[in-house]
Amino acid sequence: MTIPLDPKHPGRPARPERTGPASASPSDQLTDAPDEDRRARITWSLIAEPGDSVALMARSVCGPAEALSLAREGTDSDLLSRLGGTLPADAAAPSPGTQTLRARRALGRWRARLASVDVEAVLEEAGRRRIRIITPADGEWPMPLDDLQATAPHCLWLQGPGTLGTLVADRSIALVGSRASTPYGEDAAGSFGADIAVRGGTVVSGGAYGIDAAAHRGALAVPDGATIAVLAGGLDRLYPRGNTELLERIRERHLLVSEAPPGTAPTRWRFLARNRLIAALSQAVVVVEASWRSGALSTARLADELSRPVGAVPGPIGSAASAGCHRLIRERGAVLITEPADILDLLPGGPASGESGYAVQDELDLLSPADRRVLDAVPPRSSLSRARIAAEIGFDPAEVEAALARLCLLGLVEMTGELARRARSAR
Amino acid sequence: MTIPLDPKHPGRPARPERTGPASASPSDQLTDAPDEDRRARITWSLIAEPGDSVALMARSVCGPAEALSLAREGTDSDLLSRLGGTLPADAAAPSPGTQTLRARRALGRWRARLASVDVEAVLEEAGRRRIRIITPADGEWPMPLDDLQATAPHCLWLQGPGTLGTLVADRSIALVGSRASTPYGEDAAGSFGADIAVRGGTVVSGGAYGIDAAAHRGALAVPDGATIAVLAGGLDRLYPRGNTELLERIRERHLLVSEAPPGTAPTRWRFLARNRLIAALSQAVVVVEASWRSGALSTARLADELSRPVGAVPGPIGSAASAGCHRLIRERGAVLITEPADILDLLPGGPASGESGYAVQDELDLLSPADRRVLDAVPPRSSLSRARIAAEIGFDPAEVEAALARLCLLGLVEMTGELARRARSAR
Repeated sequence: MTIPLDPKHPGRPARPERTGPASASPSDQLTDAPDEDRRARITWSLIAEPGDSVALMARSVCGPAEALSLAREGTDSDLLSRLGGTLPADAAAPSPGTQTLRARRALGRWRARLASVDVEAVLEEAGRRRIRIITPADGEWPMPLDDLQATAPHCLWLQGPGTLGTLVADRSIALVGSRASTPYGEDAAGSFGADIAVRGGTVVSGGAYGIDAAAHRGALAVPDGATIAVLAGGLDRLYPRGNTELLERIRERHLLVSEAPPGTAPTRWRFLARNRLIAALSQAVVVVEASWRSGALSTARLADELSRPVGAVPGPIGSAASAGCHRLIRERGAVLITEPADILDLLPGGPASGESGYAVQDELDLLSPADRRVLDAVPPRSSLSRARIAAEIGFDPAEVEAALARLCLLGLVEMTGELARRARSAR
Repeated sequence: MTIPLDPKHPGRPARPERTGPASASPSDQLTDAPDEDRRARITWSLIAEPGDSVALMARSVCGPAEALSLAREGTDSDLLSRLGGTLPADAAAPSPGTQTLRARRALGRWRARLASVDVEAVLEEAGRRRIRIITPADGEWPMPLDDLQATAPHCLWLQGPGTLGTLVADRSIALVGSRASTPYGEDAAGSFGADIAVRGGTVVSGGAYGIDAAAHRGALAVPDGATIAVLAGGLDRLYPRGNTELLERIRERHLLVSEAPPGTAPTRWRFLARNRLIAALSQAVVVVEASWRSGALSTARLADELSRPVGAVPGPIGSAASAGCHRLIRERGAVLITEPADILDLLPGGPASGESGYAVQDELDLLSPADRRVLDAVPPRSSLSRARIAAEIGFDPAEVEAALARLCLLGLVEMTGELARRARSAR
């Protein structure tokens, strides 16, 4: 079977059948008769792994519904020819083999799941749990996800009162890091999270132990502070279990997000695929603590690929929990972050670094070099004559006199006749 | 009076009357009849401040002896015309005024000192203290000082058994930082200093409290570890007093260096001028701890101007003592340093970063993505059949079988018939 190119079926449906965002109740959305595109995307989410790049490309090239027909009834050569004869680098199944063999394997794994998947049952269960589904046809779909191009998720599963598109439209900052964090890193994550929330931003993180949890908690500690957790598994299984209460609070007040349908276990592979969503849903990614090979570094790399600015928080050089951050700064051009203002500086249109609180100069900085030299020559706890000062530093006595006059005006030097002494404030 | 251009008197004398380095005893060198160039340089060192850029340029343009004649007998217009009509930006006396007025002031300050200076007495006193003097005519003069061009010191005053040119010829590293250091910074300075010494390098620093002292001490703790202290004042006054014992040890085993003659007090101005020598005498400058406006940042800036690589050690983000280091990394492109190998990486021809000890990958990093996914699917504390693993991750059973075989070979998985479980080492 050969599926012809059909201009009436682009990847994104021409009919903008956008469902209302948070105002419509989740169960309402699910009882809408889903159109073909929406239903195909949900099916793809059920039969293909998040990292299945052949599935993602097939959907992107053919559109969700046609790609699904291919998955159901196409041959390996149908799939191959439809994708231009070459499958994308496939992280999901990179075993060696001819293109035809790889196409056959892809069809094989999709069909194995198609045979057992029950879309209606999954939708019903999701509706019962008030888990809703958005696709690019929905107004709540965040435009930044389009930056993922062919690897954009088929759909997203959401749970909570927040509106995803609104939450990540402005000042959405990913704060990520190691599960094996230190109190130092947790303090930083918590205070940065709170500060971003105070400034009206959204803290995006992965709901994990350690840095993720501290960042979420920092945002939740602020009244109306916004935070979303992007999970690797299905939203029916809050993972890790020890963060159940935290994730429930996020679900009650804001939003949980996953591209995996309910029932999906959070495996390491899915965590790595999930990281691209954290990067795409954020305007900047800050790694707070990360060991030398932390998964947070993959989020940073993905952010870099998406042209999202990346920051990293330094720590004590002996701390293994900061080694990945130091690596990011040293080798990958991450911006060194020491305070929340540094994070906002990462954003396009963020405040200038002058807001950082360090830019204030004291009067000593404003002195001319000559005046500083004269001030230096005035002893801290005794007096010296103008002539002695001039001789000591090799200046004209007239120069010294003029400098001393300026220093007196600034309150740095006191004169008694010819004798100069430091003012108390300048010692 | 107009001093004509005389090709027989370039800035550096044509006769290479090089005195022997450390082998000749200091007093021998001082009893050599100093040639005109040498004596003129010593006189300049006595009458002009280290930062007197008009003096430095006059010496550079006219040669030391002719410049000294100008200082003694020239008019302001002689000086101006000899320097091409424009005096260099003069940090030593930047008061406003016409070029003529500035030339007059320069002549005035030199003559005030010429009137009272007694070169013979200074040389005698220096000889008595075994302080020796080197100029560019000496074999011990370090070539890297030439990078300072017109601001190279007139001469250097040295005390100790070390040979300056040899000490800084290879792997000379400046470790600098705040006097107001923390135990964290002192630990880093000490261990970096020791490590540089172990690897045959020379630790260059300023002999101050805090980071400087810790860096010197680290090098001294290593048998034959080399370190030199570049001081802002005369070598007859070891400053600060609290470091007298440390500086005496450096003087006994290695070398103290200053461009200021004996009798010079260490004022802040002279510290800033001294910093250019630390930068020039080093192949790389590492700031270990520095507050937001530490003088160590000026050393880093001067190093940058001399094309010396600059590194900075990060610290806890709440530590004011690390704020300057973070600023250097964030705003000025300093390389983040966490271990001694990072410092050697700064040097041209230094070891590749692979020596850093972090580059070793464990076997998990070497797995193909497919094998990693299969490993992920093998439960840590129970068994799972091949078929269940294939279903869980959507792989062909044949793919799973091949992956499990590889994982068994690597010792990561154990098979019992159809059932796979994690090897103890891979949990």
